[in-house]
Amino acid sequence: MEAEILAVGTEILLGDILNTNAQYLSKQLASLGIDVHFQTVVGDNEKRLTEAVNLAFSRADLIITSGGLGPTEDDLTKETCTRYFGEPLVEDQKAMEMMEEFFQGLKRTMTDNNKKQAMVPRGCTVMYNENGTAPGIIQEGKGKILMMFPGPPRELIPMFETYAKPYLAAKQDQIFVSRVLRISKVGESEVEHLLQDIIDRQTNPTIATYVKRFEVIIRLTAKAKNEQEANRLIDPVAEEIHERLGINLYAEGETSVAEVVSKMLLERKETIAVAESLTGGMVASALVDYPGISASFLEGAVTYSNEAKMRRLGVKEETLQKYGAVSAQTAAEMAIGIAKTSGAGIGLSTTGIAGPGGGSAEKPVGTVYLGLWYHGKVKTKLVPLVGNRERIRIRAMEAAFDWLRRTMLREEAPQGEEEKANG
Amino acid sequence: MEAEILAVGTEILLGDILNTNAQYLSKQLASLGIDVHFQTVVGDNEKRLTEAVNLAFSRADLIITSGGLGPTEDDLTKETCTRYFGEPLVEDQKAMEMMEEFFQGLKRTMTDNNKKQAMVPRGCTVMYNENGTAPGIIQEGKGKILMMFPGPPRELIPMFETYAKPYLAAKQDQIFVSRVLRISKVGESEVEHLLQDIIDRQTNPTIATYVKRFEVIIRLTAKAKNEQEANRLIDPVAEEIHERLGINLYAEGETSVAEVVSKMLLERKETIAVAESLTGGMVASALVDYPGISASFLEGAVTYSNEAKMRRLGVKEETLQKYGAVSAQTAAEMAIGIAKTSGAGIGLSTTGIAGPGGGSAEKPVGTVYLGLWYHGKVKTKLVPLVGNRERIRIRAMEAAFDWLRRTMLREEAPQGEEEKANG
Repeated sequence: MEAEILAVGTEILLGDILNTNAQYLSKQLASLGIDVHFQTVVGDNEKRLTEAVNLAFSRADLIITSGGLGPTEDDLTKETCTRYFGEPLVEDQKAMEMMEEFFQGLKRTMTDNNKKQAMVPRGCTVMYNENGTAPGIIQEGKGKILMMFPGPPRELIPMFETYAKPYLAAKQDQIFVSRVLRISKVGESEVEHLLQDIIDRQTNPTIATYVKRFEVIIRLTAKAKNEQEANRLIDPVAEEIHERLGINLYAEGETSVAEVVSKMLLERKETIAVAESLTGGMVASALVDYPGISASFLEGAVTYSNEAKMRRLGVKEETLQKYGAVSAQTAAEMAIGIAKTSGAGIGLSTTGIAGPGGGSAEKPVGTVYLGLWYHGKVKTKLVPLVGNRERIRIRAMEAAFDWLRRTMLREEAPQGEEEKANG
Repeated sequence: MEAEILAVGTEILLGDILNTNAQYLSKQLASLGIDVHFQTVVGDNEKRLTEAVNLAFSRADLIITSGGLGPTEDDLTKETCTRYFGEPLVEDQKAMEMMEEFFQGLKRTMTDNNKKQAMVPRGCTVMYNENGTAPGIIQEGKGKILMMFPGPPRELIPMFETYAKPYLAAKQDQIFVSRVLRISKVGESEVEHLLQDIIDRQTNPTIATYVKRFEVIIRLTAKAKNEQEANRLIDPVAEEIHERLGINLYAEGETSVAEVVSKMLLERKETIAVAESLTGGMVASALVDYPGISASFLEGAVTYSNEAKMRRLGVKEETLQKYGAVSAQTAAEMAIGIAKTSGAGIGLSTTGIAGPGGGSAEKPVGTVYLGLWYHGKVKTKLVPLVGNRERIRIRAMEAAFDWLRRTMLREEAPQGEEEKANG
């Protein structure tokens, strides 16, 4: 099946809105094994919309539109697109009732022009809208499928999941299922090198690696009749990669190293406190992102000034003078200080030069030291980073979490288990 | 002039990449007074690319492409698009030299297939690439203008600014200049109400309001011969809006309330310390975002647990038991505690229920209290918020900064200056 995605809205052509729907829909169609040949954006202009719709029907089997289903005169998508099938618009009672309820919930009166939204082509499948007013529509005939969605992603996405995805999956012999494996600390070329023979050997699932922000992602994509069969194909390959990459593979699916660590802390009933300089609260905030973390996270100290490092954490003035605020010694004393004053089993600290100023030949911008108090033992780590202030701060936060994750895992790992590479 | 934006790349059709170039280019063209009628995305497929290019030339005066200028066989944009003009490709010496230098800088050998990138249509204007290998191309003839850019935004954007923008501006009698005014705490309808007569009266600049994340934005757009003349038109209208909205208008241009407050703290030589519960380090981290803030920001305490609130900040056990951790009383004691222990002139605190759990009938999810110690006086504020955990936390952080901003401004404002509305 060949598809075309058609977004309708002058606001996209003015650059006021980013067309994220096209990306979402493309990804979904790819996973269903449907090829997208064109994405088009056209404004709320009847002549040009008609031209774009006719072209789409002439070259695609599946036409998916977003936007232009609203109550105003500018909203022309439904009337223009459905013309191809020649069915009249009729009122859908359930859509009308849902719209009335929606307005009641907002304590607003429904004006007459809204009623237009409940008019649907005779014989179509209505995609009811739980998050807005305009229903979506699936219409099929003359060898074509038309799917029309409202523009807001929070309305389009649940509608696609509920109605369109199963509708299309039922027509496909084969679907594509992807699983993502997340790697920390090892570079992309190193990952490819470590997995080269598996990558070469595999055709289903296929294996692709790419870099996303600060990590390497491995995506396994299987083609199969259904999700269960696809997972049966993916499981053994994922397991082999897990074994090959060991501790460097930190998670599967959509997550972050901070989330993985938060979960581990709670499962192991660990207590943690953090002392931050350059990350300035980012480590603490990433922990607080995780609901329920209060059982593990005792407190955070943002000690950006030397004075605060001394008063709050007991870092020695002598240490700051002799080694500087950005040093292994200061990082160690920060970690010890926050652990001891809070009583936490784990104390994690960050100190470094985020820039743009403050660098020197000896300690350039991007020099970051981490400190870790782990049940009575203290260690430090130098992490040299590059990039702008924001990038260095985020990367320092992620490095701190990954280091803690590795430390927690090593405590239970057999002797000799070591990191496979430095990155 | 009517334009069409054509992005070339299978990775966009697979949903792997979001087409941010289309938004950037659309915005730029709008500011130049050029109408964009279509945005199209096509894959690295010769037949469909040719079809899309022919269509674009048939209906637009200006065709702007992104992507497909690289060294591989898949990169077909240049060869396909330039066919319209019938000029042969010739080697551009400067582009070749720059490419050689680029590879030397990376300490990599330039392979032969890269040379293809330095081939350009005879007589065109070359847009040299400071951030990658493929140069961009401007070609004009037969009443059409073609501009071709490489796909990566970090290459496309500087090229557009340096070459394409002045090239197009020279052809336009009138350009559009926009200025953005940022409003906190007042809702969109209230802003429109307060400015209705100005909005109705104005045609140049036009005035548009819209909501962006948690604030209302007013955009003034003037049509003029050049930037200077446009600013002369905008200035008096901006000034009138400033007067009308008073303290609610917190900044012009691209900034945030945290940045505005950081700047104010440094200018006024204020010292600040923060005590955070639900925001968990976000307030501290937003301060640390601002380079040089160490002169004002003494320290942050992330006291997510009751124990930490008592030990670190001196919040009374009695207060926590009687009023709860999420209360005006606790917020006040947190603010006093962090100010006194740090010696800062300003102490700012946050406490609240971010959800998804932890809410009650009396204190639902989204109940947030802020506390502020301001040079010896303490006050608190209840901020009722809605949304998911992330949204509530970010909104609480922004509300804290805005409240501090208003407090600092009132200290020097004439008597009777009060907020115009509650939001």
